[in-house]
Amino acid sequence: MKYGVVAFPSKKLQDLANAYRKRYDPHYALITPHMTVKGVFEADEQEIKDVAKAIKAITNKHNPFELNVSKVNSFAPITNTIYFKAELNDALAELHKDLNSNLPGNAPEFTFVPHVTIAQKLTSGEHDDIIGQLKMIGVDHSETIDRLHLLYQLEDGSWTVYETFRLDEDN
Amino acid sequence: MKYGVVAFPSKKLQDLANAYRKRYDPHYALITPHMTVKGVFEADEQEIKDVAKAIKAITNKHNPFELNVSKVNSFAPITNTIYFKAELNDALAELHKDLNSNLPGNAPEFTFVPHVTIAQKLTSGEHDDIIGQLKMIGVDHSETIDRLHLLYQLEDGSWTVYETFRLDEDN
Repeated sequence: MKYGVVAFPSKKLQDLANAYRKRYDPHYALITPHMTVKGVFEADEQEIKDVAKAIKAITNKHNPFELNVSKVNSFAPITNTIYFKAELNDALAELHKDLNSNLPGNAPEFTFVPHVTIAQKLTSGEHDDIIGQLKMIGVDHSETIDRLHLLYQLEDGSWTVYETFRLDEDN
Repeated sequence: MKYGVVAFPSKKLQDLANAYRKRYDPHYALITPHMTVKGVFEADEQEIKDVAKAIKAITNKHNPFELNVSKVNSFAPITNTIYFKAELNDALAELHKDLNSNLPGNAPEFTFVPHVTIAQKLTSGEHDDIIGQLKMIGVDHSETIDRLHLLYQLEDGSWTVYETFRLDEDN
């Protein structure tokens, strides 16, 4: 079974992201807008119990972090994915590092670029048509993220929440 | 903002429900298969913090419950909604009662019929065409539900998890 760990931002930012995703993201119906902090990994239903314990231990040690989103950017030419770029502050970087070094799955292939995807699987033509306008419209949003969610994927590709973890639950 | 409390069953039952929902449920893309235990209610972002505390207090007092699904049924002629009917055992009935008498929102309009919807918003013709076959195929599934999820709705109608609550967390 496939699992991942994400942060869901507030309704306000999710609604804004969905205004774009509805048109430009074929994953629109599979998951609500999110920022991935630990990419997809495999675990069975027994293993995931230990994984959940490990995430709980990690999130207990970390404080809530600021999600500052102030720019639209693109991963092109690697993939034609457009996103709200989140600032990589120390709190988020440490949390990402702890999750990725203590949970199953491969090390991330690329440097961590925290983001909320708003468009993907575009042709190069589509990408080039809209990127300029999306960058110009931009985005400007800040909020505090105080929880992460462990998700699992169904056969149809959609994602369900397995468990929520509050950051800094002990304090 | 609209909130609700649901149980997400295991991947196995969700995949089974989705095989039908994909064809017969226009809410298919808005939320993964679920059993509602506290229907939609309104709360703002401050109020929901108290609601979450109330849910935590309630779920701490209740044990995990058995979800036994052994029949396909329909709410017709009230609505053309077809569902996997879950057995209303004492544990689930008490949990439902506690949530509905201690959280905001209206009392349920109907007797509690715990279920996982697999088809809805059908015309009467569509409903009558498929109900016989779906009943004949039937369903037979049991599992233990050990957590509930508090969800909120985005502007596009989709639902995001706000928090997970383990049943019987204290023991």
